[in-house]
Amino acid sequence: MRLILNTCLYYQKAFYRIRSRQINDTVTKLLNSKKEQSTNHQLIQRKENITNNDKILKIPRGTRDYHPNQMKIREEVFQTIINCFKQHGANTIDTPVIELTTLLKEKYGEDSKLIYELKDQDDDEETLALRYDLTVPFARYLSQNKISTMKRYHIGKVYRLDNPKMTRGRYREFYQCDFDIAGNYDPMIPEAECIKIIVEILDKLALGQYKIYINHRKLLDAIFTVCGVPDKLFRSLSSTIDKLDKNSWDVVRNEMINEKGLSSEVVDKISRYVHMHGNVNLIEQLRNDPELSSEKLSIEALNDLELLFRYLTLFNVMDKVIFDLKLARGLDYYTGVIFEAVLIQYQYNPQLDDDQIAVGSVAAGGRYDELVGKIDPKQRCVPCIGVSIGVERIFTIKEYQLTQSKIQSKTIETEVYVASAEKNFLEERMKLCTYLWKNGFKTEMAYKCNPKLLDQLQYCEKNQIELCVIIGSSELETDTIKIRDVITRNEFLIPREQLIDEIRIHLNKVRQRLVENKQQ
Amino acid sequence: MRLILNTCLYYQKAFYRIRSRQINDTVTKLLNSKKEQSTNHQLIQRKENITNNDKILKIPRGTRDYHPNQMKIREEVFQTIINCFKQHGANTIDTPVIELTTLLKEKYGEDSKLIYELKDQDDDEETLALRYDLTVPFARYLSQNKISTMKRYHIGKVYRLDNPKMTRGRYREFYQCDFDIAGNYDPMIPEAECIKIIVEILDKLALGQYKIYINHRKLLDAIFTVCGVPDKLFRSLSSTIDKLDKNSWDVVRNEMINEKGLSSEVVDKISRYVHMHGNVNLIEQLRNDPELSSEKLSIEALNDLELLFRYLTLFNVMDKVIFDLKLARGLDYYTGVIFEAVLIQYQYNPQLDDDQIAVGSVAAGGRYDELVGKIDPKQRCVPCIGVSIGVERIFTIKEYQLTQSKIQSKTIETEVYVASAEKNFLEERMKLCTYLWKNGFKTEMAYKCNPKLLDQLQYCEKNQIELCVIIGSSELETDTIKIRDVITRNEFLIPREQLIDEIRIHLNKVRQRLVENKQQ
Repeated sequence: MRLILNTCLYYQKAFYRIRSRQINDTVTKLLNSKKEQSTNHQLIQRKENITNNDKILKIPRGTRDYHPNQMKIREEVFQTIINCFKQHGANTIDTPVIELTTLLKEKYGEDSKLIYELKDQDDDEETLALRYDLTVPFARYLSQNKISTMKRYHIGKVYRLDNPKMTRGRYREFYQCDFDIAGNYDPMIPEAECIKIIVEILDKLALGQYKIYINHRKLLDAIFTVCGVPDKLFRSLSSTIDKLDKNSWDVVRNEMINEKGLSSEVVDKISRYVHMHGNVNLIEQLRNDPELSSEKLSIEALNDLELLFRYLTLFNVMDKVIFDLKLARGLDYYTGVIFEAVLIQYQYNPQLDDDQIAVGSVAAGGRYDELVGKIDPKQRCVPCIGVSIGVERIFTIKEYQLTQSKIQSKTIETEVYVASAEKNFLEERMKLCTYLWKNGFKTEMAYKCNPKLLDQLQYCEKNQIELCVIIGSSELETDTIKIRDVITRNEFLIPREQLIDEIRIHLNKVRQRLVENKQQ
Repeated sequence: MRLILNTCLYYQKAFYRIRSRQINDTVTKLLNSKKEQSTNHQLIQRKENITNNDKILKIPRGTRDYHPNQMKIREEVFQTIINCFKQHGANTIDTPVIELTTLLKEKYGEDSKLIYELKDQDDDEETLALRYDLTVPFARYLSQNKISTMKRYHIGKVYRLDNPKMTRGRYREFYQCDFDIAGNYDPMIPEAECIKIIVEILDKLALGQYKIYINHRKLLDAIFTVCGVPDKLFRSLSSTIDKLDKNSWDVVRNEMINEKGLSSEVVDKISRYVHMHGNVNLIEQLRNDPELSSEKLSIEALNDLELLFRYLTLFNVMDKVIFDLKLARGLDYYTGVIFEAVLIQYQYNPQLDDDQIAVGSVAAGGRYDELVGKIDPKQRCVPCIGVSIGVERIFTIKEYQLTQSKIQSKTIETEVYVASAEKNFLEERMKLCTYLWKNGFKTEMAYKCNPKLLDQLQYCEKNQIELCVIIGSSELETDTIKIRDVITRNEFLIPREQLIDEIRIHLNKVRQRLVENKQQ
């Protein structure tokens, strides 16, 4: 047997007490130097690639690894969002990341070229691609399972061969986080709930002030009609106007004239409309517009918006909303109300450099009544509306805020660490761990036969573990055990049989103190 | 304004009471017929494809949609597993689903042909593939970030162009759920913790009796040496022996002779060894084996296993463990202790048909000390050990158990439903919802201007919502509100100002009752 329980009494109690103070000082010094190292380490982590003469080790362009501190943010953000979805009675589903290419093609307009396709496999006749969003798979899910009403959220990774901009939270592999209501319901009630949910989520996430821009695809179509835009250009013109959040009117105007072939008169007329924004009053103004007033689509859209704003007032969120005619949304499939939430502090500013934390919209969505019908083999329609939370952009902001605050977050949940100052105490530590795990405590110990006490205490401090339980030969003899409060470094000798109770008491004390410190 | 608050008093209180009883009866009838429909619906959902003359709507072979009841199981299983990982102080990370093909190739031996590759993209020089497991990406993560110690778990989807067997939980897209300990530690301590974690997880998941088979790659290599197997066949012979869990010895023997080109004498000698199993006693027996006793690798392996079994005894899990020489594990990268947990009730039985719920191993892993060094540009080594929980197989069993129990699980968390029996009460319902959401209640209402009370109550019963809050003109007049206990169908009229308190009280009552019913 390689390990024999060693009861030798070399380390006397008195000696240990003196050592203890020395150890505390050394821990402090070492922790400080570790902190410096860790900053350097983070700088290294920021570099995407590490190369040497022979090999390159990297991840695909536009993707990223999530480190434990980033995972912590991700989990908290997801939990907040999921709680809001559940507060509104949503189910959740999951669909495969890979779908048949035929399903995805011709659903995203110009953006279809951004779809990642898989190599054809020898033994299979299926042509596959990575999903571009969660909306088309949801429509496929509804159709394939013959579901006509469903309120669900779905969190999953999607893929776009886009030009990545990591500082703005734009990746090629990224999470989407969608809430959708499918079903044939009365007008604007689901719309109002989607916008209410955006408000609840953004308030809970505490990302700062924001505005929710609202528009209606039918109103845009009516405007295009009265301005003299040919029907076939409607959808692609929406994409062009959508670029106004990151480009000046001149850039967009040029695209309309030079790429879409519109006359400058038509473009100037469009300009007058799309620069309008306001609230309920704008509805009246547009109703009195001599040209729009005779357009059926315009009347429908304005009735919808009036009703929506009424409901949003009842939901107590109308102060967050701006009716904005230049909101167009890029995707082809929208058919009704569209909306987009923007954080005021992190709006894109063309005068700042490329590294600014400017994330664009953090939530967006709209009504898409025809998508399921297009996919369904029998053209069965299921009207839908949905909102997508821009979680990657939210992660970017939260990570930036954490870096600014310089708070070290606790990434592991260990609350008790089992340590020893003496040699040959591995088996005792193992027995203690077994006992603590059995009693539900999150417990760790060193994976060494004879670890240094300094290393063990340092691990506790670095990982913000609340308590350290220390066992040695004198404790074993007297049937006691030492509990150390890792932050205050106070130590208490307690009877071994009271271990569980004492840990509970001290854990509560430490946590109480942390809460009080936070409040101060 | 399309909606005006309607205070008409058509529906008198007395009338409502009589109606209420009629409604209860009808609800019961309708719910029963719904239940039948829902069973049929599930049958439809089981079919993978839905076709008609023109279009086929399906998902890729070997993938699946997760429906809300399946998501519920998935979340519970994940939560149980994650809690165990956290109990042992693990961090978590995430890595991209897509990796550079160069990283994945030559890591999985014969299985490399099962890797999904992406089409080359025009604008990029990267050749990409979907990850095959989480272990190689973890090794890449350690190397790229120059990390030499880490205890982390990782849950994510992986992809294999395998022959799918859905009834056995074998898919082409599936979740992996890995816990790994990287770092240069003393022998067998991380090994023991990995096996301890398997026991904790399988006990918590309550899947029935199980056994954990343990072996050592070095021992297998020593056995191959003394049996006269050429070195270059060692790894591929491990894959062959690994097939013994689903094949008879004759099948494996044939493969060894006809495909690997071994003589029948060599194979028979191997047979004598790989059919040995036992516990600590087997270590002594092998130590006395005249041929093995002189093999360095054998001595190392047996010392390791003796120490491991000592630690597993201290961790109180030795009763679950079998030392089994035929456990080989298919993957190339293992270098030390290997292990595999099997549910006794769901072991594969060749005498049963293909649809049996036989999932094979539900947790497996081992030591892989050389993988990081192989990947690292400077051949820097990081010894690692890991365990992978077979979550898809566990989902399959849990889904099967749920189907057998015929319990309808609650998939949405809504606790209060806001209803009305009268027309034109939408705005009142909206105001009430806003109030309840603000107070943190999970609340829903119908997305209709004038929903039928029957439909609303039916929604509550179908979705197991605890309480229904009912508002009508008489309640509005008297500043009261009605709370309905959905299960007992009892109703209480309360002052509106006490709504929040009363909901809390009644929710507690309902939940208390549910707990008591469960215990009975």
